[in-house]
Amino acid sequence: MKKIYFTPGPSELFFTVNDHIKNALKEQIPSISHRSGEFKKIVANTKKYISELLNLPEGYHIAFLSSATEIWERIIQNTVEEKSLHIVNGAFSSRFYEIASSLGKSAIKLESNEGSCHLLTDEMIENDVELIAFTHNETSTGAMHPMEDVYEFKSRNKDVLIALDVVSSVPCVEIDYSKVDCAYFSVQKSFGLPAGLGVWIYNERVLEKADKLKSKGLKTGSYHTISSLHKKILEDQTPETPNMLNIYLLGKVAEDMLQIGLPKIRRDINYKSAVLYQALENHSSLKPFVSDEKFRSKTVIVAETGEKNSADILKILNQSHLVVGSGYGKRKQSQIRIANFAAHSNEQIEMLADRLSQLN
Amino acid sequence: MKKIYFTPGPSELFFTVNDHIKNALKEQIPSISHRSGEFKKIVANTKKYISELLNLPEGYHIAFLSSATEIWERIIQNTVEEKSLHIVNGAFSSRFYEIASSLGKSAIKLESNEGSCHLLTDEMIENDVELIAFTHNETSTGAMHPMEDVYEFKSRNKDVLIALDVVSSVPCVEIDYSKVDCAYFSVQKSFGLPAGLGVWIYNERVLEKADKLKSKGLKTGSYHTISSLHKKILEDQTPETPNMLNIYLLGKVAEDMLQIGLPKIRRDINYKSAVLYQALENHSSLKPFVSDEKFRSKTVIVAETGEKNSADILKILNQSHLVVGSGYGKRKQSQIRIANFAAHSNEQIEMLADRLSQLN
Repeated sequence: MKKIYFTPGPSELFFTVNDHIKNALKEQIPSISHRSGEFKKIVANTKKYISELLNLPEGYHIAFLSSATEIWERIIQNTVEEKSLHIVNGAFSSRFYEIASSLGKSAIKLESNEGSCHLLTDEMIENDVELIAFTHNETSTGAMHPMEDVYEFKSRNKDVLIALDVVSSVPCVEIDYSKVDCAYFSVQKSFGLPAGLGVWIYNERVLEKADKLKSKGLKTGSYHTISSLHKKILEDQTPETPNMLNIYLLGKVAEDMLQIGLPKIRRDINYKSAVLYQALENHSSLKPFVSDEKFRSKTVIVAETGEKNSADILKILNQSHLVVGSGYGKRKQSQIRIANFAAHSNEQIEMLADRLSQLN
Repeated sequence: MKKIYFTPGPSELFFTVNDHIKNALKEQIPSISHRSGEFKKIVANTKKYISELLNLPEGYHIAFLSSATEIWERIIQNTVEEKSLHIVNGAFSSRFYEIASSLGKSAIKLESNEGSCHLLTDEMIENDVELIAFTHNETSTGAMHPMEDVYEFKSRNKDVLIALDVVSSVPCVEIDYSKVDCAYFSVQKSFGLPAGLGVWIYNERVLEKADKLKSKGLKTGSYHTISSLHKKILEDQTPETPNMLNIYLLGKVAEDMLQIGLPKIRRDINYKSAVLYQALENHSSLKPFVSDEKFRSKTVIVAETGEKNSADILKILNQSHLVVGSGYGKRKQSQIRIANFAAHSNEQIEMLADRLSQLN
C-alpha cells in the first residue's frame, strides 16, 4: 500500500507528477539535446508558467540551478563584497549565514528564538550591510515571517538588497516579489517534484551589483555567476547540461496549478493548516511549537510531543501508512513536523489530523 | 514511433532506465527523506556498484555533484593554489581551462589540433604546475587520449595531480584509476540516464591538497568543498538535498551493467565503433574527422560531411527516426557526431551504418 508523505521535503509528489514523468519518457525528453530548439521551448514554457504562477513583476528573471543550497552560495558570491546580514531563527537560515562566512564574508547574524521571527528594523542596515537574507518559512521550526513587515521595511530602505528564502512556502503563500530583490526555492517541497533543481528569481539590481563586484576585480564564480546564468536564460538555455527532466516537470506542474487556480490552492492551504493547528490545540499531549499565532507557518506545522518521543508517534502513524517528519536537529525526538503542501488533499490532512487526535 | 538517439549526450536512455523510473515511482523513492536510512542505503548501493564497475582502487572515493561542469569548478577550487595546466584539444577541455581562469588561477593551456591529442611530456610539469587536466574523450571532436601515455607519464611524475575527464568514455573504455588522482563524469552520456548528476572520483591526495590550501587561508568553497562532500559521503549522505532519483538510477544501471558484464559491453563498443568507422572509410562523401587511428574515439565518432551540410544529413536520418548530433561549434554544419554508448545495441548501430552508407 502506498504511503502518504507529510514530510517537509522531499514530500508527497504533486498528483500529476507520475503521469508527467511517464509522458516525458514516452516523448523521450531525457534524450533530446539540451541545446536543441525542443529543449529551449521547454525552458521557455517553465519560465512562462512560473512567472505567471508567482505573478513576477516586469524585470524579474528566473534561473535554474541545482539546489537552494547552491543558490545560497551564488547569492553571496554575486551580491556581497563584504557584509551580509542574516536573520536567523532556525537551522536553514543559520546555514545560509554559515555559507556566507565560509566564503570569507563578514557575515552578521541576528538570532531570534527558534519558533519565532525577528522583525526587520531600520537599524539592521547600519554598518554598510549590502544584503539582508531571511527565510520566509523556516522549515526546521515552522515559523513564518509576516511579509507585511518586509514590505514596510523595503518601502523605507530601498537601497539594501533583500534575499528571500521561499523554499517551503512557495507557491502556497502569496508574496509580492516586487518588494524583494531575489528569492529562491527548491522543487521537492510544495511543488511536489523529485529533488535536484533550485530556482533563483532575481531582478536587475542583483545583476547590477554583480557587475559592480566584477568591475572591482572580485571573483563572482565561473559557470554559475549570475551574469552567465542570465545570458543563457535569456536564450532559454543554461550554462551546463541541467536537470532537464525536472525543468520540464516544474513547467508542467506550474501549468497544472494555474489550471486549478492559486486562489483555490491557497484557500485549501489555509483550511488544512487550520485543521492541523486545531487538532494540536485540542490535543492532550501534542501542542504547536510556535506559540505566537502570527508567526505560525501555514505549510510546515511543528508540534512539540511533550512526554512522548517523536519516534513512537512516527511509528504509530506509519502503521496507517502516514509519514510525518521528526523534529530538526536537537529537537529530533521532542517534535514532529508536518508538511501542508499543494500535493496534500484536504481529505489526507483531515485523516492525519484525526489520526493525531486519537493519539494520547 | 520512437526515435533512436545517437546524440553524444543527452543520448539514448539505457534500456533498463524506463523500468527503474517506474519502480522508483512505485516505491515512492522521490518522497523519502534525503536524511533517512532508506536513502543512505541507496547512496551506499550506488557507491558500491560504481566502485565495482569501475574497479576503483582502495582509497578512491565517490562524490555526487550536479554536473561535470560543476566538478570543473570544484576541482580548481580545491586543488589549485596558483597554477593548473590544461591539455586542450576541443571545446570541452577548453571550457575547463576557462573555468580555471575565471576563478583567478594562472591557468595554462597547451593546445593541439582539434581531432588530435597532445601526448604528455615531462616538461609540462615545470614551473610549479599543481594539476594537469585533460580529457580522455573530447566529445566535441571525437579524439581519445591513449591512456598508456598517461600511465607512463604518471609513473615518472608521481607528485603532480592529474584530473581526468571521462565524461563520454566511462565505463565503455577501461581506465586504471590508480594512475590518476581524480576523474569525473556526468550520467547523461554512456550511463544512459537523464541529465542532472555529476560523479567525482578522487583519492586521498586530492583531500590532502584541499587541506593544504585551507591551512594557507585559501577559500575552497562552501557546501561543496571536497572536505564537506567527503565528510558526508562517508556517511552515505550529501551536503544538500541532491538529485536523489538519479543517484538511485545510477546505482541500478551500474548493477545492470555488472550483470551484463563490462567485458561484453566493451567488446560491443569495439565492434560497433569498427562498424561505424568502416562505414565512414568506405563512404563516398563522409569521412572520419580524426585521421590518426590511435586517437580515434570509440564512443563519439565524428565525421566530416564534405560538400554536404550536416543539417541535410540529420534531416534524412530523422526520416528513419535516427537522431545523430551535428558538429560542435564552428563545425556545426561540416560535421556530424555519433554516440556509441552502452545503450546502443549492435543492431541499432548496424542500422545507422547502413543508412549512412546509403547517403551519397
